[in-house]
Amino acid sequence: MSNSEVANKQVIFKGYIDGVPKQTDMELNFSNIQLNQQLPPQSLLLKNLYLSCDPYMRGRMRDFHGSYIPPFVPSQALEGFGVSKVIVSDNPNFKAGDFISGFTGWEEYSIISIAKAQQLRKIEHDHHIPLSFHLGLLGMPGFTAYAGFYEVCAPKSGEYVFVSAASGAVGQLVGQLAKLHGCYVVGSAGSKEKVELLKEKLGFDEAFNYKEELDLDAALKRYFPQGIDIYFDNVGGDMLDAALLNMKIHGRIAVCGMISQSNLSDPKGISNLSSLIYKRIRMEGFLQSDYLHLFPKFLEQVSSYYKQGKIVYFEDMNEGLESAPAAFVGLFHGKNVGKQVIRVAHE
Amino acid sequence: MSNSEVANKQVIFKGYIDGVPKQTDMELNFSNIQLNQQLPPQSLLLKNLYLSCDPYMRGRMRDFHGSYIPPFVPSQALEGFGVSKVIVSDNPNFKAGDFISGFTGWEEYSIISIAKAQQLRKIEHDHHIPLSFHLGLLGMPGFTAYAGFYEVCAPKSGEYVFVSAASGAVGQLVGQLAKLHGCYVVGSAGSKEKVELLKEKLGFDEAFNYKEELDLDAALKRYFPQGIDIYFDNVGGDMLDAALLNMKIHGRIAVCGMISQSNLSDPKGISNLSSLIYKRIRMEGFLQSDYLHLFPKFLEQVSSYYKQGKIVYFEDMNEGLESAPAAFVGLFHGKNVGKQVIRVAHE
Repeated sequence: MSNSEVANKQVIFKGYIDGVPKQTDMELNFSNIQLNQQLPPQSLLLKNLYLSCDPYMRGRMRDFHGSYIPPFVPSQALEGFGVSKVIVSDNPNFKAGDFISGFTGWEEYSIISIAKAQQLRKIEHDHHIPLSFHLGLLGMPGFTAYAGFYEVCAPKSGEYVFVSAASGAVGQLVGQLAKLHGCYVVGSAGSKEKVELLKEKLGFDEAFNYKEELDLDAALKRYFPQGIDIYFDNVGGDMLDAALLNMKIHGRIAVCGMISQSNLSDPKGISNLSSLIYKRIRMEGFLQSDYLHLFPKFLEQVSSYYKQGKIVYFEDMNEGLESAPAAFVGLFHGKNVGKQVIRVAHE
Repeated sequence: MSNSEVANKQVIFKGYIDGVPKQTDMELNFSNIQLNQQLPPQSLLLKNLYLSCDPYMRGRMRDFHGSYIPPFVPSQALEGFGVSKVIVSDNPNFKAGDFISGFTGWEEYSIISIAKAQQLRKIEHDHHIPLSFHLGLLGMPGFTAYAGFYEVCAPKSGEYVFVSAASGAVGQLVGQLAKLHGCYVVGSAGSKEKVELLKEKLGFDEAFNYKEELDLDAALKRYFPQGIDIYFDNVGGDMLDAALLNMKIHGRIAVCGMISQSNLSDPKGISNLSSLIYKRIRMEGFLQSDYLHLFPKFLEQVSSYYKQGKIVYFEDMNEGLESAPAAFVGLFHGKNVGKQVIRVAHE
């Protein structure tokens, strides 16, 4: 091993899967990398500091090329959002020492080609905001909450808002933005601890543990006796079916994620869509990537809210790349409390 | 029977039902009515000329009071859209001899209270347009097509449009409006005769008989190799599920009716809603009654198209009130070819 050669642990994607992701769908690989190697033109060598575990990554484990993002490549490291430090740059937009966020590999060091380097974002390192927040509050999940709530839900002050997976990476910001907008907000989550977080720390008006409800329709009728104006749907499945029965006339459903269905090759059908007609409901799927023109405004507004103490944000931080497979798999069992992040290296 | 007493046949709603409507859910009643009776203040006595059979009426046969329209009253005549002639008026807005359209009874003569008289519309009798068209092309179904296509679907010239139940009261106008708008239009229907009507008379680019397709997904892929921009959904169920798989990015689904599901107390679920997310689809239920401010513009534009020969409209006309129960039941078996109307009396 030469002076500039260092160990580079990786999390390898073993191959396409059906059903719920398991730790054995990934494996650790131990190799080395030359830090002073000649990079391809305009490429970057990054040291990865934080990696993000996000449910959408499940979609990349299928052998399906028709989606908005291609599948993972078997036998290569997984890819995901990360916060990284530039070690070597052949790209005029970045220099050594810069902090960046964007797609990187599930490994300690990554070489980023020119095409992918164009999609990276330089982080203005503000010491009042944790760097890892660029994977959550100020990253893709936070922007998903922002774009979905303001652009898709068309909220009005005083409206009744329901958020599922409410303590998750997206849901916790949706609920807080809705409160700041003057809405009444109820969240659902899958444990007593999460429900307490929603009510005690995140300012939700009410919250409930869906696993303790035998009848989701009845639960929603209890929390929304007058009906729901806005449902921010992170889960799909039975909760969506129950919400359809409890929407108000001209209600809106932002379809953000269907984690309850994402592992099922034969998902359970939604039966109550006729509610769409007689209640004139708008149900709209969205991706944050369609709203990137709003990203600078989002960053400014949400950073400002955070620094003023108007919003908080909870992370579930795992230590070390080797913890990544379990943390990712845990998403699909509701193990994370808040945004799931992996600390690969200290800043 | 005095001089002014005449026979008044009625179709009586026997009681709330489950499942598909049957002729035996209704019965004929023979009574008499005094034509020179003293009416309650501001009421009208109508002679009904044409009655409309519409699928939404199935919803009024349930004992469910939470919808946009109340259920029928057992042991009374059914209610529906009709074209009628005013015989006696105590209402300053109408005079004897006027032709009107709006809610009336399934009977030869109806007394309309002040509250219901306010919702009637006087018809300017234009001899170039059949009176019965005020139940179809120029009535609720036509306006449903107009509002749904222009306001909900947000169509652009050159887009790919799919219409189910395409030869029906609503679908036939949707397809023709889409063609006039510069779209490529494919319709589905349930018989060879209807498919020919779509292609030969209604100007659809293509049409297919869904009953001859073993795999609706494959059928849509054949007719829309590039995908669907707009799906005007009149049926729900399996066709909706297949359309979800074939929508283009940023596609729109106007949810107008779910006749395939309207008889089922346990409707089959829709499994492909995750397409909403990755294709960013907007799916919106609507009722024409939310767009009534556009009705005068609709009436002018569609009447003008019709008189210029730019659109045509097909009715399925049954003769006599006694044919009404079978005609209504036939809707749910796809028996009607075009808009189903009952002629109760000649003009």
